[in-house]
Amino acid sequence: MAKVSTASISRALNDPDKVSKTTRERIEKAIDALGYTPHFGGRVLAMSRTNTVGAIIPSMANAMFASGLQAFQEVLAEAGVNMLVASTGYDPQQELRQIKSLMARGADGLLLIGSERPPQTRDFLMKRHVPYVLSWCFKPGDDQLCVGFDNHQAAYDATSQVLAKGHRRIAMICGVRAGNDRAQDRYDGVRTAIEDFGAPAALVQVCEAKYRLEYGAEAFAAIMSGNRAATAVICGNDVLAAGALMRARDLGIDVPGQVSLIGFDDIGLASVVTPPLATVRVPQIEMGRHAARVLLARLSGGTQPESVQLPADFIHRASLAAPPD
Amino acid sequence: MAKVSTASISRALNDPDKVSKTTRERIEKAIDALGYTPHFGGRVLAMSRTNTVGAIIPSMANAMFASGLQAFQEVLAEAGVNMLVASTGYDPQQELRQIKSLMARGADGLLLIGSERPPQTRDFLMKRHVPYVLSWCFKPGDDQLCVGFDNHQAAYDATSQVLAKGHRRIAMICGVRAGNDRAQDRYDGVRTAIEDFGAPAALVQVCEAKYRLEYGAEAFAAIMSGNRAATAVICGNDVLAAGALMRARDLGIDVPGQVSLIGFDDIGLASVVTPPLATVRVPQIEMGRHAARVLLARLSGGTQPESVQLPADFIHRASLAAPPD
Repeated sequence: MAKVSTASISRALNDPDKVSKTTRERIEKAIDALGYTPHFGGRVLAMSRTNTVGAIIPSMANAMFASGLQAFQEVLAEAGVNMLVASTGYDPQQELRQIKSLMARGADGLLLIGSERPPQTRDFLMKRHVPYVLSWCFKPGDDQLCVGFDNHQAAYDATSQVLAKGHRRIAMICGVRAGNDRAQDRYDGVRTAIEDFGAPAALVQVCEAKYRLEYGAEAFAAIMSGNRAATAVICGNDVLAAGALMRARDLGIDVPGQVSLIGFDDIGLASVVTPPLATVRVPQIEMGRHAARVLLARLSGGTQPESVQLPADFIHRASLAAPPD
Repeated sequence: MAKVSTASISRALNDPDKVSKTTRERIEKAIDALGYTPHFGGRVLAMSRTNTVGAIIPSMANAMFASGLQAFQEVLAEAGVNMLVASTGYDPQQELRQIKSLMARGADGLLLIGSERPPQTRDFLMKRHVPYVLSWCFKPGDDQLCVGFDNHQAAYDATSQVLAKGHRRIAMICGVRAGNDRAQDRYDGVRTAIEDFGAPAALVQVCEAKYRLEYGAEAFAAIMSGNRAATAVICGNDVLAAGALMRARDLGIDVPGQVSLIGFDDIGLASVVTPPLATVRVPQIEMGRHAARVLLARLSGGTQPESVQLPADFIHRASLAAPPD
């Protein structure tokens, strides 16, 4: 495609100063168009699988991904397959770099989190025929192989439970939505449930916060200092809710007496705090296990596996009660 | 060394059925003796660094490693170096497999946790001249490059604080010590501090538990159901302490009114639970950052870096109080 010899391509990749700028640019253009990645050891890889799978997650510092990965890895290990993990910091460009890096290091396939990514990344996955499975999401109608749950539906159901308790003025601390379809879907689920319920129910305030305790605490303080008087705060995950709870304790605000708090994920933290957090149980372990089985099936080359939707149930705990009179 | 042609070695590695059993065994013996790992793309690697570093941690599902790795990765990223993570499940054999796998995939260097490993692993690291840095530990006199803190000293100091509060009957829930020098050092530190204090102070009970909430809860129930009447329970990490606290709540045992609880690590959980956990602040972020800088310096080939010892301070919080009268 670049109309140059393979030797020139090799030089352009390994020793670019020895190739003219014109040639190098032609080669780079072809590389982009074809989605090519230099293969460390192409000969060995062409002969056999490396029995290594890559998992690319948004953040190492999130207990939810951690326990899912642990389960994913255990099933892979039973099949003699090794796992390498890379993280993206919720940055789509960093995700693409990690995908290329893991494929260049001979990963047989990938686990990716969430279903939406930039066209450039989708193109690369398609052109390189990367075997991958998505997790932590399940969107009806998505044509990608996926093992997860419906974030929108789960948030909708949780909000319905909050409304059923009698709450009408609801606030939300949601995760950063840009580049995170799970955070966006959770927000949309909360909003839609309140809209569907109709007046006098209202989403009185929305704060966006990174998934860290201190940001949950700050957002909660901001919500409580306003005059919109939310009686329930739904949080984008348990870390945000635990941060909110910590700040409530510091401010002398009674949970759930004055305000109810609702988390999402059901990480260990949720049942350890006082009061324990009402939350959505994300099937972390089951997702990890199923995702491994589905990816192994895809790599085996036999009958191609189907997407798997798992349930995400609302867990009633003491942080959710009826609103004060 | 195996007295065979390179072609035979290549066949033995890539297509073993084509090589006689005797030859194969001779080759495997030489491979073991020399610590050789097949190099995916040896030619490319011989020419240049891959700008990828491997981090091999005991468990993905531990918030403490997660935040340290996040910091480690951030410093690497500033230098244009990528990180791949693998985990061992606290199994020394699995650690050796991960070391070999990451080196075979072209890692320039490694971050390893803890300082003690089987001779086979030490041999491999030495013979292959693997550039590595140890973290989460610091042992006076250790000749390995290390960025960490002294687990024994930190546990000794924490126990001294518990004794200073007036506790004389102390129990410990410690992590699994086999193959985990940090857990062993923490246990030794607690034991030694109590011995140095002398009678009537006594370590009345020791339970070993995996680092999970439910095992901490179980161990706490076992300790409280005995008749040794500990007034303080020192835990090998915060997860165990949080599990103990959760069980105390379920059993109606007042912390710290009836029994004090002490954690280790100061993960986010420690300040979120009620009462907040007295604990040892492990310098997770600083360790991650320093470890990255030291490893990068080692890889740069300039002046070789020195080991770095960081402080691990005791944090007083409400879960530690004077014993009941």
